[in-house]
This record gives sequence, C-alpha cells and structure tokens, in this order.
Amino acid sequence: MSEIVAARTPSYSRIELATLTSRAQANLLGNIHGGEVVKLADSTAGVVAQRHSGGPAVTAALDEMAFLEPVRVGDIIRTFGQVNWVGRSSMEIGVRIETEPWDAAGKVLHVGSAYFVFVAVDGAGHGRPVPALEPETDEDRRRMHEAEVRRAHRLARRTEIDAIRAGS
Amino acid sequence: MSEIVAARTPSYSRIELATLTSRAQANLLGNIHGGEVVKLADSTAGVVAQRHSGGPAVTAALDEMAFLEPVRVGDIIRTFGQVNWVGRSSMEIGVRIETEPWDAAGKVLHVGSAYFVFVAVDGAGHGRPVPALEPETDEDRRRMHEAEVRRAHRLARRTEIDAIRAGS
Amino acid sequence: MSEIVAARTPSYSRIELATLTSRAQANLLGNIHGGEVVKLADSTAGVVAQRHSGGPAVTAALDEMAFLEPVRVGDIIRTFGQVNWVGRSSMEIGVRIETEPWDAAGKVLHVGSAYFVFVAVDGAGHGRPVPALEPETDEDRRRMHEAEVRRAHRLARRTEIDAIRAGS
Amino acid sequence: MSEIVAARTPSYSRIELATLTSRAQANLLGNIHGGEVVKLADSTAGVVAQRHSGGPAVTAALDEMAFLEPVRVGDIIRTFGQVNWVGRSSMEIGVRIETEPWDAAGKVLHVGSAYFVFVAVDGAGHGRPVPALEPETDEDRRRMHEAEVRRAHRLARRTEIDAIRAGS
Amino acid sequence: MSEIVAARTPSYSRIELATLTSRAQANLLGNIHGGEVVKLADSTAGVVAQRHSGGPAVTAALDEMAFLEPVRVGDIIRTFGQVNWVGRSSMEIGVRIETEPWDAAGKVLHVGSAYFVFVAVDGAGHGRPVPALEPETDEDRRRMHEAEVRRAHRLARRTEIDAIRAGS
Amino acid sequence: MSEIVAARTPSYSRIELATLTSRAQANLLGNIHGGEVVKLADSTAGVVAQRHSGGPAVTAALDEMAFLEPVRVGDIIRTFGQVNWVGRSSMEIGVRIETEPWDAAGKVLHVGSAYFVFVAVDGAGHGRPVPALEPETDEDRRRMHEAEVRRAHRLARRTEIDAIRAGS
Repeated sequence: MSEIVAARTPSYSRIELATLTSRAQANLLGNIHGGEVVKLADSTAGVVAQRHSGGPAVTAALDEMAFLEPVRVGDIIRTFGQVNWVGRSSMEIGVRIETEPWDAAGKVLHVGSAYFVFVAVDGAGHGRPVPALEPETDEDRRRMHEAEVRRAHRLARRTEIDAIRAGS
Repeated sequence: MSEIVAARTPSYSRIELATLTSRAQANLLGNIHGGEVVKLADSTAGVVAQRHSGGPAVTAALDEMAFLEPVRVGDIIRTFGQVNWVGRSSMEIGVRIETEPWDAAGKVLHVGSAYFVFVAVDGAGHGRPVPALEPETDEDRRRMHEAEVRRAHRLARRTEIDAIRAGS
Repeated sequence: MSEIVAARTPSYSRIELATLTSRAQANLLGNIHGGEVVKLADSTAGVVAQRHSGGPAVTAALDEMAFLEPVRVGDIIRTFGQVNWVGRSSMEIGVRIETEPWDAAGKVLHVGSAYFVFVAVDGAGHGRPVPALEPETDEDRRRMHEAEVRRAHRLARRTEIDAIRAGS
Repeated sequence: MSEIVAARTPSYSRIELATLTSRAQANLLGNIHGGEVVKLADSTAGVVAQRHSGGPAVTAALDEMAFLEPVRVGDIIRTFGQVNWVGRSSMEIGVRIETEPWDAAGKVLHVGSAYFVFVAVDGAGHGRPVPALEPETDEDRRRMHEAEVRRAHRLARRTEIDAIRAGS
Repeated sequence: MSEIVAARTPSYSRIELATLTSRAQANLLGNIHGGEVVKLADSTAGVVAQRHSGGPAVTAALDEMAFLEPVRVGDIIRTFGQVNWVGRSSMEIGVRIETEPWDAAGKVLHVGSAYFVFVAVDGAGHGRPVPALEPETDEDRRRMHEAEVRRAHRLARRTEIDAIRAGS
Repeated sequence: MSEIVAARTPSYSRIELATLTSRAQANLLGNIHGGEVVKLADSTAGVVAQRHSGGPAVTAALDEMAFLEPVRVGDIIRTFGQVNWVGRSSMEIGVRIETEPWDAAGKVLHVGSAYFVFVAVDGAGHGRPVPALEPETDEDRRRMHEAEVRRAHRLARRTEIDAIRAGS
C-alpha cells in the first residue's frame, strides 16, 4: 500500500464523513461532549493522513479549535478533512465540522474547524517521508498559506512561553 | 450546588484522573488514538470547570496540544487539570497528560499538555458568571500569565488569518 | 417540529452518512459483522423517516438485503437513504450501502441495498399520518414501482407460508 | 475444529441467547432500535452457522423481518436460532425473537422472525462446503419447505425488479 | 408494578441469560476479563431482585466467587439466577455461570457461582420491604440453608478482622 | 518484561486509578451498577498483579465486597490496589474504592473494599511462580494477616457447604 509517489493533490485524499450522534456521547444537558467532537475530527484527519502518505500516520499535535455551535443528540455531524500543508514526514490536516440539526431538515451550522499535525510512521513508529503537496486551486493555496501562519504562531508562542518558564 | 462565591483558588477545583487504556481505544499499531487522549483531557477539564463554577460548563475552544509520546494499550493515562485563568463566564483549564507504561513500573512519561476554554452555562445554555480566580502560588501566577499569552496569540492569529481570507 | 404538510419530495429527506469502521465492529476475520452494517442502514433509514414524517418513527419491517462485498476494519461505509413509497402512516425507505476500502483511495464498492418499512408514531406509540410522497424524477418513480413489487411479494409470500403452516 | 462431517441435524447447532437490554441501545422514546434487534439476531445466526459448518461463516443476505412488538429498556430479548436449509456452502438460519417485559414476570411476546443466509468461508474468504442438513421432525421439514418458498420468491422478485430496471 | 405480595417462590423470579462474548471484553490472551463475568452475573442478579421485589433494587454486597474455567472470545456465557434467601428488604441472589466453548458444540463448563446481596429501594433510595421467600423444593431449602452459612461466615469474619484492626 | 525477581514490596506495584463515571454505566435511578464498580476494581487489581508478577495474570477468585455508598453519574471513582499476600503463583490483591461526589468538591466517601485472588500465567495459561512479598510497614503486615483470615474462612466455609451438599 505504500509505493513511493512524488506528489499528491489535496483532492486525492480529501474526505467527508457524516455521523448520527447518540445519547452515549452526550452530557446531562443533552449536548455532545466537546471531546467527542474532537475525536471525530481526529478520526477524519487520520483517514486523510493515511491516504496522502499511503500508510499509517499518528496525531502529533492539535491546533486551536473553537466550538461555535452546540451539537445535540440526534443531530448529524459532518466532518470534511483535507491536507493543507506537508513537511518531510508531517502533514497539517484541516477538518471543518458542521452539524445538521435533527429537527430542521436542510439547515447546516458551522461547529468549528480543527487543525491537526499528523506524522507518517513506519512499522517501528519512526517518521517516514510523505509525498509533496501539489495545490490545484486558489483555495488550496490559501489553506497552505494559513497553515504556515499557524506554524509561525506555534513557534513564536512556544518561544514566549519557554521564556516565561525560564524566568520563573 | 450553585451558591454564589466571590473567588476560588486553583487548588479548590484541581483534579487528577487515571485510566487504564483498552484495546477498543487503539489503532492498528496498538497505540491509543490521539482523539481518545483529547477526549480524556476534555473530560478532566470538564470536571474542573464544573467545580470552579459550581454548575454545568461546556467546551468553547481547545488550544494547541502536542503529543510527545505514544500511549499504548495497557498503559495508564494520568490527567491533571486545573483552572489557569477566568473571565466573566469563561475559564481556561490546563490539563497535563502523563502515561505510565504497563511494562515499566514506576516510569512516567509526559504525553502533552492541552488548554481548554470552558464556558459556564445555565439551564438554557446561556453563559453565567463564574467566581474570580485567586492564585495562591508563584506557579499559579505563572500559569495565569501563560494563559494570557495564549489568548493574545489566539486573537493575533485570528486577525492575521481573517486578513488572508479577506484578501483571497 | 411536526406541522402538517400535504406532500414532500424524496429529495426533501434524502440523506447520506459515512462512517469509519473500527475493530470493535469486526469478527475474527477482520470483517465488519453483517449485523453492524444493518444497524447502520437502520439508523440512516430512521433519520430519513423522521425527516419525511416530521417526527418520531420506528422500524416496522426489514426487507431482503444482500451483502455483496465484505467491509473491513478501517474502510469507510457510506449509506444513502431515501423514501421510496409512503402509505397512511408507513414509509418504505431504501438504503444503498457502499464501502471505500482504506487501502485504495477513490475506489467504491457496492455492498448492498436494504429496504425498511418505518411507521411514524406519536408520543403514545400509535401510528400517525405522514405526508404523501411526490416523486420528482423518473428514478423516483422507478423506486416507487419497485417498492410496490416488494410489497406484493411480501403479501404473496406470507399467504403461501401461512398455507404451509395451516396444512402442517 | 473443522473435521468433515457428512450431515448434521438442526438440533446439533440450535441455540438460544437471552440478553438484558440497556439504555445505550434505545431511541429517545425508550424503545430498543430495530437495528439493535437485527444485530442480535445476526449474532445468534452466526453462532448457529459456525456450529453447523464447523468453522467461520459470514452473513450473505437477510430476508424479510417484521417487528411486531416494541422492546423496551430493561426487557429481556430471547433469540432462538436454527438451520432451516443448506446448499453447497450456504445455509438459511431462522431466528425467532421474543421479549420478556421487565414489568411483567412470566409474560412473553413474539417480536418477529428473521431469516439469514450465511456462507461458510475458509481463511481466504472463499466458500467451503458445509454438511448436509438432516431434518428429524415434521417441524424441521416444514422449516425446510418454507425456506425453499423464500428462496423462490427472492429469485422471482429479483427477476421482476431487474426487468423494471432494464426497462427504465 | 409494585403491588404488595405476601410471599413469592424462587421459581417466580428465576432467570437465565445467555450472551455471546466479544473481543471488546477480552484481555490480551483472548480471555474474557473476570470483571466482565462478574458484571454479567450482577446484571442477572439485578433482574431477579427486581422481579422478586416488584421494583428497583441495588447491589449491597458480593460474596466470594471462584473462576474455575476461563471464558474465551466467541464462547457463550450462560447465567442462571435465583433468590436463595430474603430478609426484610434484602435478598441473597445466587448466580451460576456456565460457558459453552464456541469450538465444541454441546459442551458446557461450570465457570463459577456468585452470591449477591441486593436491597430493594424506593424512589428516594431507602430500603423497602420485600415479599417473603416460599421455598418449594428440597433444592430451594438447601440453597436457603447455604445462604445462612454464608451470612454467618460474613459476620464472623468481619468480627475477626475488626479485632485485628482494633489491635493494630 | 519477566526477569526473575526473588521478592517485591507492596509499594512496588501499588496503584491508584480514578475514573469519571458516565451515564452508560448507570441504572435507571442514576446510580452506577454494582457490576461496573466491581469491573473497575478487577481492572485495578489486574494491573497490580501484572506489575508484581512481571507478566500476565488472571482473576481466580473474588472475595466478599460490600457497597457502602452509591456512586452516581458524574462522580469520580478512585480505586487503590495493592498486593496483600502471595502464594506460589497466586496473589491476593486488595482494592479500596472511594467516590468523590460531583456536587461536593473535596468530599470523599468509602464505597467498599474488594479482595481478588489473581494467578500469574504463562503464554499457555498455566500458573507461573511469582516473587515473594516483602512487607515494609505494620500496615503491610496487618493486610497480610487479614488475607490469611480470609483464606481460612474461604476454606472453612467451603468445607461446611460441601457437607450440606453431601448430606442433601
């Protein structure tokens, strides 16, 4: 399953999942736990990472994600995943999360977007090289740009917090 | 359960959970899914938020989290949660995640740290005010400072990405 | 959620779900249990029935379904549901089931089609009237015709088997 | 586990399972999902198929099944499975489903009967021959006769529907 | 469901459950966890206690239980529960646990017997009186006698251990 | 993982787990099933047995356990496990169970104590020798003494009940 490929487009591994939520995932208010939503987004991102890299991949980091709308029991959660950026063996996967309320056919709400860094691994768990990313559309290029902004802020923030810790 | 209290210390709501991982949470490599780890961290943060605010609270955002070590089936995951910062009805909860490998008694590995924003809600799902946070130690004050850095970066990054989107 | 509506088209309630399969759903050969596939199809049909009828609905019967392809752990199951036919308070919902093998991006296999009869119920569990079905396309009309053939065979078969039992 | 045997009686592999239902299997009305009931019936049929054939077997088709009574949280579901008919590598397994309401000790309700076709498979997933079926009682012979009626209707219906599709 | 009844026989509430075990309940050796077996026995005892007492009942104690045989994935666990003895609001429920190995049709192994004390409760969780127990057979009387021996040893052992603790 | 070691202290393998309870584990009164609590205690004991013996171990028996306090949905269950006594290949593991009510931060209730006998096994499921137990504190020695009392009562009770059965 892991022939070497020079580059792949975002559309090659893009995916959409859609799940009916159940009471087992809900808190006492009848809303789906934030952790369950993240878990679904992580699964979606995992499929994308595996497809782009042609083999197993594991979650290395999860970037900021906001929960703009509650998801309720019986609603459908739709997750849309795609590769935004790739490094040597790491990939940023963006996942857009939408919900369709069970009592309003046709209505769609934006729950949030999550950004995961996955690393492709071999059988021993070591990083392995992944195909380059070949953006096709302006949208693909915008996503790549945004991923670089997120990466810059991750590094800057880490430096700033390390300084606080060193000084404390 | 929700008498009004002016302020609470981080130690009032601090909590530690410890869970034995099972095969149902693992991928085909025998490692626990990143999404399962985040879900555990979210549950831990939820208990802390509920204790500090004296009532129900929901996940509003999840900040960056890195996965530094894999967790394997049979390992114990320990999560340590505490309030780092509070606003009017929102709270930043930090969760440190550690693992104890099943085949190395006494060994402890740092898996990562996750930062959640929870909002205290009333029965109708609207925000409700939470007690102020009264840091007791230098460590508590450092955490409060770091939470402010994270918030500043969240805002700056959002502005920058909005600009990219407006320009595209 | 249950205003009275004279008629609805199949496209009003048509739905697509997509689920990543996990090891907990598999037999010892690594294939997803037939019962798990039917359960997913039933959930999909339930959402469709609820949307068409504007309220709760329960499974009354399940018609023949063939399993043409195995589904494996890690594959994605896609289910497509739509109303084919309606009676006074009952509806036939057809669900097409497809699988996307995890190791062959872009490949799609037809697993089977299942036909459910759902009955719309009120709070006490009694049947309640459902909107008529307004087919829009030739495809919709063909599905309605096939649903009638299935119903005729259900009745004929039942008569024949009742005769065997009466004679035995 | 798979010595070659010329023929086996229905009583050799007949089985009864009985499960206490839980809230995790229920819809919002407190009734067990139809899909959960079918899943239990499929598990029961799978045990029977495995016993008759002396090895692994997979669901190939599911024939019509009616749900005559709702099953509620806390009720006990009893499933009775037996081989009705065998071909070269396929077997029709009938499953009778009954429920014992939790609030009426001693009462038993007939929920429905489901008919599954299972195929015995080898390690590579290919069909393997199964022992012939040796009916012992008039009841066994009646079941075999009914299975043949179902098979005839399956074939007739398929021909009729194929004709509709060819003509459309 | 809770009309007052003076006395009930053991056969009134006697029950048998039978469950197909799955991989999700197994340890890495492929054996079902002892804790899963006890959980099944507790569920069985709970149904018996509820039937005898005509309403809700909770586990108050669990007496010694030995695991004489391993249960493996795919085996069927049969549990047989009956009331052995009743007090004012408490009941001793005995549960016999047997397994049918999946690869040996017709073979039955005795896994162990567990003895639970359940207390019948009202809506507020307080004890409520239960019907007396009317043994019908010598077997019923023997079970009642054994339950009294277990109770005597529970009390004697507790006294002895309390003395050790007081002296330490 | 299984180098031969002459003796180990109780503190070497002592462990504490802490779990947030969920609705899926509760009965209709909102209390966690006794069977779920025992399952958690068994998991805790299993980790201890595995650590002390340096390899796989299975539950051989479960001694009396009382449930002194109900555990409710949302409460935290804490389990503390330690080796009390060892034989040639068997170990008695004591598990103390506490609950922290979700609506009373800082309050801790003693739910009960359970005593398990585990047997260390090799790959074929046969018993294998375990390191001796080296008590360090008076508390450790008291626990060892109590374990011997429990064992004496187990044997005495069994003899007495065998006599009842032989005479019946």
